[in-house]
Amino acid sequence: MTDHQYRPELPRLMIEDAVRGALLEDLGRAGDITTMATIGAQMTATARMTSREDGIVSGIEIARASFALIDPAIAFDAFVRDGDRVSKGDDLAIVTGNARAILTAERTALNYLMHLCGIATLTARYAAEISHTRARVTCTRKTVPGLRAFAKHAVRCGGGSTHRYGLDDAILIKDNHIAVAGGVAAAIRAGKAFAGHLVKVECEVTTLDELREALAERPDVILLDNMEPRILIEAVAINDGLCVLEASGGISLDTIREVAETGVDYISTSKITMAAPTLDIGLDVVVR
Amino acid sequence: MTDHQYRPELPRLMIEDAVRGALLEDLGRAGDITTMATIGAQMTATARMTSREDGIVSGIEIARASFALIDPAIAFDAFVRDGDRVSKGDDLAIVTGNARAILTAERTALNYLMHLCGIATLTARYAAEISHTRARVTCTRKTVPGLRAFAKHAVRCGGGSTHRYGLDDAILIKDNHIAVAGGVAAAIRAGKAFAGHLVKVECEVTTLDELREALAERPDVILLDNMEPRILIEAVAINDGLCVLEASGGISLDTIREVAETGVDYISTSKITMAAPTLDIGLDVVVR
Amino acid sequence: MTDHQYRPELPRLMIEDAVRGALLEDLGRAGDITTMATIGAQMTATARMTSREDGIVSGIEIARASFALIDPAIAFDAFVRDGDRVSKGDDLAIVTGNARAILTAERTALNYLMHLCGIATLTARYAAEISHTRARVTCTRKTVPGLRAFAKHAVRCGGGSTHRYGLDDAILIKDNHIAVAGGVAAAIRAGKAFAGHLVKVECEVTTLDELREALAERPDVILLDNMEPRILIEAVAINDGLCVLEASGGISLDTIREVAETGVDYISTSKITMAAPTLDIGLDVVVR
Amino acid sequence: MTDHQYRPELPRLMIEDAVRGALLEDLGRAGDITTMATIGAQMTATARMTSREDGIVSGIEIARASFALIDPAIAFDAFVRDGDRVSKGDDLAIVTGNARAILTAERTALNYLMHLCGIATLTARYAAEISHTRARVTCTRKTVPGLRAFAKHAVRCGGGSTHRYGLDDAILIKDNHIAVAGGVAAAIRAGKAFAGHLVKVECEVTTLDELREALAERPDVILLDNMEPRILIEAVAINDGLCVLEASGGISLDTIREVAETGVDYISTSKITMAAPTLDIGLDVVVR
Amino acid sequence: MTDHQYRPELPRLMIEDAVRGALLEDLGRAGDITTMATIGAQMTATARMTSREDGIVSGIEIARASFALIDPAIAFDAFVRDGDRVSKGDDLAIVTGNARAILTAERTALNYLMHLCGIATLTARYAAEISHTRARVTCTRKTVPGLRAFAKHAVRCGGGSTHRYGLDDAILIKDNHIAVAGGVAAAIRAGKAFAGHLVKVECEVTTLDELREALAERPDVILLDNMEPRILIEAVAINDGLCVLEASGGISLDTIREVAETGVDYISTSKITMAAPTLDIGLDVVVR
Amino acid sequence: MTDHQYRPELPRLMIEDAVRGALLEDLGRAGDITTMATIGAQMTATARMTSREDGIVSGIEIARASFALIDPAIAFDAFVRDGDRVSKGDDLAIVTGNARAILTAERTALNYLMHLCGIATLTARYAAEISHTRARVTCTRKTVPGLRAFAKHAVRCGGGSTHRYGLDDAILIKDNHIAVAGGVAAAIRAGKAFAGHLVKVECEVTTLDELREALAERPDVILLDNMEPRILIEAVAINDGLCVLEASGGISLDTIREVAETGVDYISTSKITMAAPTLDIGLDVVVR
Repeated sequence: MTDHQYRPELPRLMIEDAVRGALLEDLGRAGDITTMATIGAQMTATARMTSREDGIVSGIEIARASFALIDPAIAFDAFVRDGDRVSKGDDLAIVTGNARAILTAERTALNYLMHLCGIATLTARYAAEISHTRARVTCTRKTVPGLRAFAKHAVRCGGGSTHRYGLDDAILIKDNHIAVAGGVAAAIRAGKAFAGHLVKVECEVTTLDELREALAERPDVILLDNMEPRILIEAVAINDGLCVLEASGGISLDTIREVAETGVDYISTSKITMAAPTLDIGLDVVVR
Repeated sequence: MTDHQYRPELPRLMIEDAVRGALLEDLGRAGDITTMATIGAQMTATARMTSREDGIVSGIEIARASFALIDPAIAFDAFVRDGDRVSKGDDLAIVTGNARAILTAERTALNYLMHLCGIATLTARYAAEISHTRARVTCTRKTVPGLRAFAKHAVRCGGGSTHRYGLDDAILIKDNHIAVAGGVAAAIRAGKAFAGHLVKVECEVTTLDELREALAERPDVILLDNMEPRILIEAVAINDGLCVLEASGGISLDTIREVAETGVDYISTSKITMAAPTLDIGLDVVVR
Repeated sequence: MTDHQYRPELPRLMIEDAVRGALLEDLGRAGDITTMATIGAQMTATARMTSREDGIVSGIEIARASFALIDPAIAFDAFVRDGDRVSKGDDLAIVTGNARAILTAERTALNYLMHLCGIATLTARYAAEISHTRARVTCTRKTVPGLRAFAKHAVRCGGGSTHRYGLDDAILIKDNHIAVAGGVAAAIRAGKAFAGHLVKVECEVTTLDELREALAERPDVILLDNMEPRILIEAVAINDGLCVLEASGGISLDTIREVAETGVDYISTSKITMAAPTLDIGLDVVVR
Repeated sequence: MTDHQYRPELPRLMIEDAVRGALLEDLGRAGDITTMATIGAQMTATARMTSREDGIVSGIEIARASFALIDPAIAFDAFVRDGDRVSKGDDLAIVTGNARAILTAERTALNYLMHLCGIATLTARYAAEISHTRARVTCTRKTVPGLRAFAKHAVRCGGGSTHRYGLDDAILIKDNHIAVAGGVAAAIRAGKAFAGHLVKVECEVTTLDELREALAERPDVILLDNMEPRILIEAVAINDGLCVLEASGGISLDTIREVAETGVDYISTSKITMAAPTLDIGLDVVVR
Repeated sequence: MTDHQYRPELPRLMIEDAVRGALLEDLGRAGDITTMATIGAQMTATARMTSREDGIVSGIEIARASFALIDPAIAFDAFVRDGDRVSKGDDLAIVTGNARAILTAERTALNYLMHLCGIATLTARYAAEISHTRARVTCTRKTVPGLRAFAKHAVRCGGGSTHRYGLDDAILIKDNHIAVAGGVAAAIRAGKAFAGHLVKVECEVTTLDELREALAERPDVILLDNMEPRILIEAVAINDGLCVLEASGGISLDTIREVAETGVDYISTSKITMAAPTLDIGLDVVVR
Repeated sequence: MTDHQYRPELPRLMIEDAVRGALLEDLGRAGDITTMATIGAQMTATARMTSREDGIVSGIEIARASFALIDPAIAFDAFVRDGDRVSKGDDLAIVTGNARAILTAERTALNYLMHLCGIATLTARYAAEISHTRARVTCTRKTVPGLRAFAKHAVRCGGGSTHRYGLDDAILIKDNHIAVAGGVAAAIRAGKAFAGHLVKVECEVTTLDELREALAERPDVILLDNMEPRILIEAVAINDGLCVLEASGGISLDTIREVAETGVDYISTSKITMAAPTLDIGLDVVVR
């Protein structure tokens, strides 16, 4: 869950663009033919959106937009905000308005919520494992295509950190770049020369020798890739607070605690964005 | 895996639209600043795209498009087609061309592949559990927003069936519709009146009495929701081949076999689209 | 006209997307230079939208959106709903608000209405010819590009049925598919194998022998193409209620009655979507 | 048909944007499921696109783009160019390539061609009626929404003139503008003041008195609305060559000759764009 | 400044489309992380938008839309309209609402305003130089890509005239066209034949002989390119009021007066659209 | 000019999206009616694109795309790359192909080039003024809406640094944020807490006391706003190499040298992006 004073927000324009696309994907060309066939155009309904599991909320404003874009007259009264913890049985929101509209928007709202709350909830589990350390869990660029901003937001809702959002907002030098650039030191120098003063430079290393070579160039962050905990402990000692250290490779709920206790600053994993189970959320509708 | 004579294809226009968006999401405004800083503009590279797990391929043409949209001059030689089974260590493709371009497109290509091969592979596991029965596993409209067509395609690659693609291509009458329409029979009649001759009508029932009421109206499909296997056996007997029967609710790899052996025709689950672990696929680049 | 209890609706998101495009097409880059030159920016007006012919309404919500997207403050009071029958001289709506805005939106609103009411009205004439039979008139995929969903909706407003909306929502096997697949029976079997349980399969036949071959495979629908009424009568007898029968080819207002009286279920024609004369509708503005 | 030395062309970018949208409309989410079920992915085919009626060609490059956007490898050998006259039975083009692709693109290509050739052909019939006079037939802004540029192009292919393309490329003062602006003279003066030197100003008049008032202000064009031929003859005499004269109102194939013989310069009608019957064009495919 | 009775307006749909794109460009994927980090989500603020220089307003509705698209609840009270003259220190508007939203939208609103007010203000300076003559200053198609409609609108706000908006709304024959068409006379004849009755034809000439050749064909406008004032005087005499005359080439604030005094009707320059300094406008925010 | 080993590149997808929009803006609905009227459809031409001033190249690939999107068959042979210095009279490229296509694309290609080369050239002049110091000139978020990525690229071509690309890629704390957050120190702490490890935090200060307060929190960068050179010298001494220092406010070609010589690291100005005169570039066409 987010423990910052100031919660993250998704820009409204982004939400609307994405949700509009998702709704059109579901509406197809003919629209919701089941409600047209069975529900009168003027009927109204009330629905409770309820969590069927414990978890962390993410995407409540996306759910709101899903209903609003189908029918701006729908009232969406939310009881939670992104980052809140909910328990099984808690209502997230009450939705009131045109019955056809609520049933038409339901699936899109829930698909977003279930996916994003799933990410937030799994992130929070990883974060809880390491809350006694200085380390923070962070995601990567391994996200479902088209949903990066939402997935990163969900990670933040779960108390994780967001890493790069794309290829353009930080320099992350990996093995291939190093090979071409002529070694760790040369690559970091090239990166810093290109970066300017508002872009961070991170460099991946796989051995302690590479770590020492990197440290001499003072990148902002050093990524310790696939090192065992006992090597990470050495790396932390060698670093001696000079650079921010990120560990990656083979991180799971079973291993993250041991990695965090080595003293690294960040631990990155694609598990929280690419392999999070959905949070089960339902919508119970009462049509009148 | 797909066992049809004729494999499914994703329309090229859809692939391009989606991949263009995913690439722009990753490029942001400044593009791939790491390769610009460390890789010469004229360098070339060769890369092997390799599966690190056993699985089913889905999305190979999406991967091809990811590279082609960054640089049409890249050669993408694929060794597999969607629906093929691969083993750990198998190469999926060799990619040759401009080094910057290959590194820039890599993540988008892999994000799609890992997600879709994951869906196809899990679907194939469900399908294998029930291959001795008449039943087929099928997905639902619970898919990650924006990726429905791709997710459905992946299910088909894994040997599953695709169910509705949206709100508009079949009528699926659920509890809320039944409540408003005045009962199962009235709802099915309304659905058939609206549907015309090229749209199927499915109706959900939760009891055997509802099943009998539904059968009298001969919908194309009856959805047996959350019934235990012993009830499903009764339902199959009552139906006596009149309608296609679909079972849903609480389906998992542990339970699907027993459900299939009741004699139902289709078994639907959102697990294969919303909770499939990614298939681990890597790209090893040799820059020259 | 629509005689269902529950009228069809076009999804609001679709209407807005389409109308936005149509308005921008008319506004070009400089906007409505005539009203800017001659009408004061603060002037208000009232306008009556009146039908100058008898007909069936289709597209009234599209007209509403045309004005609203130019100026959300415009009041659009509609006296009719889609599917209603109107007589020459009947007002469809009163539009009140900024004078420039009303004049700017007028043409787009009317172009949609005249086109769609034209389709609905012609469809109703075909439907009236065969109302004493079991047959229903239905359209095809021959629609003006970009307007398929609206054209299908208009057919429904006129009391017609909508057939496939695209290449993806039903399987329709035609002569070329049959030739490649190795005959009628093989093609239907391939279609049913691919279709899954929520997609209907229709197969075209041109002779009674083909009809018999098709019947053995029980497709959902059989399309009797270009058969004379006396052959259709035989086909209906051979079918004996097993499959839904659709007749097509050479259908006109002069011939549809005789075809319907053969006992077929559906009669398809592109005339209602591609060759419907517009319904004459005018907007009389009083600027103040 | 077009009799200019230099034929009109539709910009390639516009064609591609429009055709892409039309193809996606037809493909839906699942694509062409009939060809996937019945046609092998590697099969090739040849198809003849043939006119089944006499007419004027318009849209041949749109048809080419329809196939190319589905599969760039398809060869499209056209025997005609836009503006050419064809006779019943003439081939317009031979299409060769992947069989699935040809069948998938067929309907979109034909829907455009049939609609636009229909407009061009009807325009040519109107033009032929008045070819012995100085008058030219011209269309209006009454076009099917979204297809204005294509419809105008088709009118040009048929030998007609195109009038305004939108609200922004010429000033056309109608009754409502005149009423607000304080009369014909005041409205024309306001229009000319706003227009600048590269925008023409046209003013509608309904009486000879209004014509005289308009003439004193020398607009570029005067629209003589709903005047009988004998009044038009007087109007031409009063105008005495000072302004370009356009006649409109109640124009049909039966009446246009008499109107043209009054000596007016242009005759406008929405019939050619909104009420043109399609030209019947077929595609006969040989799959191998 | 605009001195017409009726001020020009930018269509709302155009404004929204453009501003939405500009905001998304600034928001990137993560949104305004600075305000999320430092400003409470519920805080409100008031801001004054103030001109720090004398100038002409253009784009005030674009600024309004910038705030409204970030948060529709923001109140934007404007004290000026496009075309108004403002002095250093004048407030343009007061903005009140959510503090995060105001700070997020600020830069986009100001970037538009500063650019467009800059164009309007420079145009007004050119216009003031020649206000004692019959000539009007006009812009060209040399505008920053993507901003043509806004730039033209700003020119109009500054009292200038707008010339062609694109390649399609007037025919402007230049040296290359003349060379190919076989001379000035032939090119004008070709242009008039193609143009129809609502499109103006302008032809560029560089010598008095070419002017005489052009005059014989009576184009609507003749562009006198790069002629010295003494030649322009001759040109005006030769023209003797037959055609509208436009002078271009080497126009600056230092030279325009002399050119205008030769008696030409229009003077075109790309300086006002491509080289206008921004008008300095600031937003002072009081957060509460 | 760029002096890095590896030149910056604009992603091809971004170029195509932007140029497509710019071309459609110029083509309008009717396309290039002047070339259609005067140039034969099959004519070919060769054109030299020549710089008429000394300057720095930026946007040559955008120019290439402008021609390619109108006609992929056009050959565009460039003699320069972005970042190259050119002298008056130097050819940038030779363009060969269809004459209509070259003339149609010309203006869009040149509008981009003239604008971006103007930015690059002015940036290089600023950079040259301070090349003897450690300081680098950098731009801001004050860019023409819609062109940010291109403007930033042009700054880089001219040897400048790019600062933030948007609201999301770095935290820049300004006076309003400080006021709300409760002072400089609190604001920086909030920023660092939110930022994670790959986002830099910059804080604006206006006095030396604020500088000292900021330094204690070690932001990545401190922005010294509107300080006189003698104060900047003090600030550099106080900073003593702890943070990167950026100076802003009132920077011009006349003042930048004195500011740079104070020892700051970066000097930011909106002049290079918002007030750069265009570089004069022409296209001389030889039509055959």
